Amino acid sequence: MQHVGISSAASVAPPPETDLPKDDQPKGDLTVRTIAMPADTNANGDIFGGWVLSQMDQAGGIAGVDRAQGRVVTVALDAMTFIRPVRVGDVLCVYTRVSHVGRTSMKIEVEAWARRFCTQVRERVTQATLTFVAIDEAGRPRPIPPEVPSPQAAT
Amino acid sequence: MQHVGISSAASVAPPPETDLPKDDQPKGDLTVRTIAMPADTNANGDIFGGWVLSQMDQAGGIAGVDRAQGRVVTVALDAMTFIRPVRVGDVLCVYTRVSHVGRTSMKIEVEAWARRFCTQVRERVTQATLTFVAIDEAGRPRPIPPEVPSPQAAT
Amino acid sequence: MQHVGISSAASVAPPPETDLPKDDQPKGDLTVRTIAMPADTNANGDIFGGWVLSQMDQAGGIAGVDRAQGRVVTVALDAMTFIRPVRVGDVLCVYTRVSHVGRTSMKIEVEAWARRFCTQVRERVTQATLTFVAIDEAGRPRPIPPEVPSPQAAT
Amino acid sequence: MQHVGISSAASVAPPPETDLPKDDQPKGDLTVRTIAMPADTNANGDIFGGWVLSQMDQAGGIAGVDRAQGRVVTVALDAMTFIRPVRVGDVLCVYTRVSHVGRTSMKIEVEAWARRFCTQVRERVTQATLTFVAIDEAGRPRPIPPEVPSPQAAT
Amino acid sequence: MQHVGISSAASVAPPPETDLPKDDQPKGDLTVRTIAMPADTNANGDIFGGWVLSQMDQAGGIAGVDRAQGRVVTVALDAMTFIRPVRVGDVLCVYTRVSHVGRTSMKIEVEAWARRFCTQVRERVTQATLTFVAIDEAGRPRPIPPEVPSPQAAT
Amino acid sequence: MQHVGISSAASVAPPPETDLPKDDQPKGDLTVRTIAMPADTNANGDIFGGWVLSQMDQAGGIAGVDRAQGRVVTVALDAMTFIRPVRVGDVLCVYTRVSHVGRTSMKIEVEAWARRFCTQVRERVTQATLTFVAIDEAGRPRPIPPEVPSPQAAT
Repeated sequence: MQHVGISSAASVAPPPETDLPKDDQPKGDLTVRTIAMPADTNANGDIFGGWVLSQMDQAGGIAGVDRAQGRVVTVALDAMTFIRPVRVGDVLCVYTRVSHVGRTSMKIEVEAWARRFCTQVRERVTQATLTFVAIDEAGRPRPIPPEVPSPQAAT
Repeated sequence: MQHVGISSAASVAPPPETDLPKDDQPKGDLTVRTIAMPADTNANGDIFGGWVLSQMDQAGGIAGVDRAQGRVVTVALDAMTFIRPVRVGDVLCVYTRVSHVGRTSMKIEVEAWARRFCTQVRERVTQATLTFVAIDEAGRPRPIPPEVPSPQAAT
Repeated sequence: MQHVGISSAASVAPPPETDLPKDDQPKGDLTVRTIAMPADTNANGDIFGGWVLSQMDQAGGIAGVDRAQGRVVTVALDAMTFIRPVRVGDVLCVYTRVSHVGRTSMKIEVEAWARRFCTQVRERVTQATLTFVAIDEAGRPRPIPPEVPSPQAAT
Repeated sequence: MQHVGISSAASVAPPPETDLPKDDQPKGDLTVRTIAMPADTNANGDIFGGWVLSQMDQAGGIAGVDRAQGRVVTVALDAMTFIRPVRVGDVLCVYTRVSHVGRTSMKIEVEAWARRFCTQVRERVTQATLTFVAIDEAGRPRPIPPEVPSPQAAT
Repeated sequence: MQHVGISSAASVAPPPETDLPKDDQPKGDLTVRTIAMPADTNANGDIFGGWVLSQMDQAGGIAGVDRAQGRVVTVALDAMTFIRPVRVGDVLCVYTRVSHVGRTSMKIEVEAWARRFCTQVRERVTQATLTFVAIDEAGRPRPIPPEVPSPQAAT
Repeated sequence: MQHVGISSAASVAPPPETDLPKDDQPKGDLTVRTIAMPADTNANGDIFGGWVLSQMDQAGGIAGVDRAQGRVVTVALDAMTFIRPVRVGDVLCVYTRVSHVGRTSMKIEVEAWARRFCTQVRERVTQATLTFVAIDEAGRPRPIPPEVPSPQAAT
């Protein structure tokens, strides 16, 4: 989860940053916002990648529960790219957007941004698409109800 | 991360199990083996998906450090499917296999299996491909050295 | 941190709810938003009060760092009332508002709200005023600079 | 939660130390005693204020359960002042004293002291008054029974 | 760490309780006192044995640092018996007593007692002898200085 | 849990290393394998001894559940020696071997080894014998069934 120069990494999996959506504005609703603490670091002293993944899974789950009006489970995670590292003291902001709704499942776009410590600088750090399935009390898939307009959209 | 019946879920993201590699044997080396504890549960009482993702990221990192003979960072995660849930008391076994080595990056296949509590039953629960880049002290990409045969392969 | 009926508790510390600001809208900026997990419960199975306090202290700290453009420390916490409990699965939303700025210190109003699990219901759960002092690298108080208008107010 | 010189901070919220009870002896019973670990640090490398608050809330809860002979909940926290910081390796000692008992509620004075790492030096770091309400199995306020003399006061 | 009936367990490792020191009074100084929380449970829902061991190791370390006036490391742990289980909500009290001091090492007796939730009942749960070695900044053994009488023995 | 030179420590509790089983090969099955993270450090910055003990207790419990085909509890821990420290980034490998089976209890040898960060070096760090008792649903000792040959010994 540490910064990797684009030039050398471009020959492998991560796409060049110019392929990414512009950094000016995150897409979707702010769903999780929390600070990266020393307890979340890995052996390198960087914020542990698994911690960022956990926050993105949580954010997706919150958005999924909202849309499906009940319990959901993660069933898949599309290609995720770690663009820039998160560091201790950064505020991690996770944005979510429901991009597709099927009968019992839905796709949610998740973007993680870092507000750098003691600055106004905000940068995209990771993004992914997660798939959730709505489930009933017994854990069986259930139909996702039609969308309800939220009277408290700004929360 | 809860059990989802194949029949109903097959219409959405998760592939039918027949498309998956056969369950008889995990592929790769056992890299992380740990027990799922109550502190790792989500609001549903199931093992939190983010915890499984963290263990897989850790396992990939261990394998990457071994192969690259030094520090590495995660730069990407290919499509990951949650096949079956993990439950409290299960022993999570994470297997890793280096599938491709480039100049500064490598791909590592990661499979997570669960040994069910108080049984001999072992089931694949999640799988993914992670991409790591070898880095030097300053965090810059560095060439991955040729493979060194391990005298302690069974550890 | 569990729900306490107003009628009987009114004779003691917690003020009657009619004395509280109206619940229709939280005041301030959304600064921390996170989900309450089973690992955060106390011996009663309720969300541990200390966890809520920690999130409020973190949120105040984030707002303080933003305003003071650098490190701050908590020096005091005014009377805090636990109005309603937080439960596993709730989304805890912490709002902050700088209410007074002195030479080296400032007061920040902090409100914690809970989005109840699987509902659109949002309720104020706790509020407090925290005092922070801006400090320099050596930990000595330093003057708080004039406010800088944020170009990214919505983050 | 870091040390703040009295001269500069005195103009704001924290009272001058001469207003505090003398440091020679903590008041009340030793209720929680634990070591501050690196996992409890904030982004500054200091012990996270929320961790100290959590320990004080726990200590108050232990004292409240003892006095009320059953479950209690925190309903309020009076003005709390952070006098001095806690550092990694310090032994945090939390003292509690029931100062007022009403029909269903009680006030508990809580003082946190730090035994500095590798020294015999003991300093008060934070103090507060917490209000607890005794509750029954259903979470409703219940009368606090008359005090029972403890045969094991020294535990 | 769960309760095991004496009659049936007596044929194996744990000694009959009549062989244990009488339960009326713990021996040594109260060194750690903390509450057992749900996050400390194992897959059975009991308090995780490793958590109790950790608290005992911490308590021994605190006592060792006090006696050796500086850093110490655990080098051995004598036979430890789990007499009774610890349960969520219990207050764990760990007592320590320096029983032998050599040139660079010392033996510390550690007893863990549980104050049962919502009762005045206090029971010994585990006991062990730990050996610590005093070390200097470079981690090398150093002589343990003569004992200094503590002016604050009751902390 | 830090490295202690043999020459000086040999006069006290820890046995000279020549008394230990040879380091060439760990004995038993690999039962737990996990990475030591910064959150597991003590006030010295070393990996907290209690964390290693917890991992060994977990590993013993996993092996005990396997052999007893159901729930078990730890009832005793024989003399344990900390031979070498564990450091952040090390991979901790815990091996277990059932050495004696009685009617309701069994002894399990547990060895912890560290794979040093970024090296192929593997060293024994701690070893102990734990005693477990098989229990039924009500927590009463139950007979340990005859051994079942495992078809998945390599997991």
